[in-house]
Amino acid sequence: MGWGDLGVFGEPSKETPNLDQMASEGMLFLDFYTANPLCSPSRAALLTGRLPVRNGFYTTNGHARNAYTPQDIVGGIPDSELLLPELLKKAGYINKIIGKWHLGHRPQFHPLKHGFDEWFGSPNCHFGPFDNQALPNIPVYRDWEMIGRYYEDFKIDLKTGEANLTQIYLQEALDFISKQQTSQQPFFLYWAIDATHAPVYASKYFLGTSQRGLYGDAVREIDDSIGKILKHLQKLGISENTFVFFTSDNGAALISAPKQGGSNGRFLCGKQTTFEGGMREPAIAWWPGHIPAGGVSHQLGNVMDLFTTSLSLAGLQPPSDRQIDGIDLLPAILQGKLIDRPIFYYRGNEMMAVRVGLYKAHYWTWSNSWEEYSKGIDFCPGQNVSGVTTHTQEEHTTLPLLFHLGRDPGEKYPLSFASDEYQRAMEQISVVVQQHKVTMVPGEPQLNVCDKAVMNWSPPGCEKLGKCLKPPKSDPKKCFWPH
Amino acid sequence: MGWGDLGVFGEPSKETPNLDQMASEGMLFLDFYTANPLCSPSRAALLTGRLPVRNGFYTTNGHARNAYTPQDIVGGIPDSELLLPELLKKAGYINKIIGKWHLGHRPQFHPLKHGFDEWFGSPNCHFGPFDNQALPNIPVYRDWEMIGRYYEDFKIDLKTGEANLTQIYLQEALDFISKQQTSQQPFFLYWAIDATHAPVYASKYFLGTSQRGLYGDAVREIDDSIGKILKHLQKLGISENTFVFFTSDNGAALISAPKQGGSNGRFLCGKQTTFEGGMREPAIAWWPGHIPAGGVSHQLGNVMDLFTTSLSLAGLQPPSDRQIDGIDLLPAILQGKLIDRPIFYYRGNEMMAVRVGLYKAHYWTWSNSWEEYSKGIDFCPGQNVSGVTTHTQEEHTTLPLLFHLGRDPGEKYPLSFASDEYQRAMEQISVVVQQHKVTMVPGEPQLNVCDKAVMNWSPPGCEKLGKCLKPPKSDPKKCFWPH
Repeated sequence: MGWGDLGVFGEPSKETPNLDQMASEGMLFLDFYTANPLCSPSRAALLTGRLPVRNGFYTTNGHARNAYTPQDIVGGIPDSELLLPELLKKAGYINKIIGKWHLGHRPQFHPLKHGFDEWFGSPNCHFGPFDNQALPNIPVYRDWEMIGRYYEDFKIDLKTGEANLTQIYLQEALDFISKQQTSQQPFFLYWAIDATHAPVYASKYFLGTSQRGLYGDAVREIDDSIGKILKHLQKLGISENTFVFFTSDNGAALISAPKQGGSNGRFLCGKQTTFEGGMREPAIAWWPGHIPAGGVSHQLGNVMDLFTTSLSLAGLQPPSDRQIDGIDLLPAILQGKLIDRPIFYYRGNEMMAVRVGLYKAHYWTWSNSWEEYSKGIDFCPGQNVSGVTTHTQEEHTTLPLLFHLGRDPGEKYPLSFASDEYQRAMEQISVVVQQHKVTMVPGEPQLNVCDKAVMNWSPPGCEKLGKCLKPPKSDPKKCFWPH
Repeated sequence: MGWGDLGVFGEPSKETPNLDQMASEGMLFLDFYTANPLCSPSRAALLTGRLPVRNGFYTTNGHARNAYTPQDIVGGIPDSELLLPELLKKAGYINKIIGKWHLGHRPQFHPLKHGFDEWFGSPNCHFGPFDNQALPNIPVYRDWEMIGRYYEDFKIDLKTGEANLTQIYLQEALDFISKQQTSQQPFFLYWAIDATHAPVYASKYFLGTSQRGLYGDAVREIDDSIGKILKHLQKLGISENTFVFFTSDNGAALISAPKQGGSNGRFLCGKQTTFEGGMREPAIAWWPGHIPAGGVSHQLGNVMDLFTTSLSLAGLQPPSDRQIDGIDLLPAILQGKLIDRPIFYYRGNEMMAVRVGLYKAHYWTWSNSWEEYSKGIDFCPGQNVSGVTTHTQEEHTTLPLLFHLGRDPGEKYPLSFASDEYQRAMEQISVVVQQHKVTMVPGEPQLNVCDKAVMNWSPPGCEKLGKCLKPPKSDPKKCFWPH
């Protein structure tokens, strides 16, 4: 989902009454970011509080390439990483993930091996249908075992866009919350729904209800579900004891537009890019009785902060044996403070850009290659900022392209290199970047090797269902990451 | 000002708390339009309830050219047109205009000859400073006579952007409202401020206060002033008896960006164009006790509707001897009804596009000429939709370019001509367009002839001030309208 997909962020159809109300009852973050313009690395960063380049969710197969965890990926979340649920356990939390995991699907990467107590959902994107010959269909797990596969047991109708998945995920969430409330145990619920990810889907009741087409139907269903979750918390009388945060893992994928694509508002480009449209996210914090209603924050925030903030809420300290990039947002959320911190925009192994205050400096620019672009793959449709949305990887490390995001949120007008403003801003930014680079210890890259043999042929539990498939011979190769 | 300049419409700095509150207390219009992508014709349409091509505010000097009323224009609002204040007088209203008139500056076009009882402001834009030799500075009027000139008696500091004008206009508004309340007379106030029009200005108190630079300072001052006007109405106890509407006369002028340019959100292009960015406007109706708080309307609205709606509020009928394009919005505002009506997008003498429901058909496309564009004049900076933002006037009258503004508010993806959806939509639209064209009787074009002799050399009242200037010899010529 993108920044511009919510009514409260100016989506012209204004079809997210529940999220808009969540904002009016809580705090809206206007300057909140994801850690990466792509799904897997962002999710790994959210759960570890660390940049993907540290936790291993990146590739060195090419320079500045986006990589994720398709089902032939060999890597996944390393055991050495400490995930939020692992830490929350120490404070007695029960942890559940509902929806897409995406941190590796091989046995050692299973979410229940990394702190979660329960899981309902899938390890990969709901791509398909596959023929179970060249590619297996993606499994859906309940806890340790698969209980079916997409397109087989969990239908997605690509023609009509109908799928009941969000309703299933909603019911899972409501049931989990009720159960925890009954047992009086503190809980962490990671509700990782994916209806707005292509192939976009919605359930029958929502199909055709949006002005925005199928994508809008999916947004409406998510919005409605969030309303139901919040009301459920209120009904159970635990809303004042439950911190809820809504955000997204990357900007809207404009490549799927207009039929399946969302909106990044007036920000430049979308998913896959380190322009604002790829990484600025809708974000709302909700905690009645604690967060003042109708608050708006300009705090620079990041999904990694949810790691540190959640630990803080549970009375825990973040690990001290490693670099944590997330900060505790509670002073911003509860006291309206503004904490000075930079935002780093990575693409794979490269720091493409950095934001300090209202300034954003691009050290590298790239949308995608001419080769891809000429085939119609366009991450910036209808947008073209000369020298900025470049189709070759352009290095600006000696003289970064600098934008003032207040005057120019759309990154259209680089500041003059000769201006005093440029000099002053870059002096400040250079120090931040230097410090960041000097102390950077990259993790072992997890997204380099792909092998068809590791795909979801025979997930645990497949025997009971008669759904085990025979894997091909192992043939590990460098994964191909075109952009 | 543009659609995207308000926090409530997703401006990322969210610096319009008063307008946002006005929306939360009143009704927000998401699909509201101006009658023209340029100032003078829009204002003429607002006050007459008629399209510029009917009321004469257009040119036939070239095809599809934007024209307005610079100070060498010979034409202005014809006596035959009935303006809103003229009609409101019949219901006992006192009418005042504060700010920019822009319907002609020669004596016969004076606002007090067209229904207004009071005026404080100027007939033209606050361009300058001029040397009073080749060009006179623009006069500021109080009622019938000038009381000074811009840059002489009413300072605008182009270096700092400082000018006190919005504060003066605010005080005028507050005083007028107080006076009418004392005399218990119904009033119409047309508060036509212009701080966001280049050269953009703000008063000392607001300078440097916005994240968005000078343009944002101007927006903040306008926002603050509107808050003060609404509070004044409440303090006087007449807010439940006063209908207030906020809107703009064209999209943000992206050509002045980033230093003096605003935002049209995710809409395509800006002022001067018939894309959504040129004509979709922020719009809020406020009338405590009558309009349900927090309402949002998808009613297709137009500034011309304010003519008919205002008459309706005053218990008056619109004139029956002429075509009125504005409709009475009260059923939409008070009862939440949706009235089926088209929106026509004109550029000069040409109907460029039409919106029916969520579909918008472009019969002509043009941003501006290659000649202008090559000089850096760009109405769509950073945006380029192939075959849509064309630099030659492209005719599509036999096969209009069709967009679905729900799925594609940015006008990036024309529907396939071969699709069923295209056929179905165009069948409906064609009928609307045919009916519109058959019954169209264009007015006498007022914006064809320019003459330096008619400029503001010696406005009434200049003698008292010793500010009369000698006009050059009359030399009427066709005005030059490049785009």
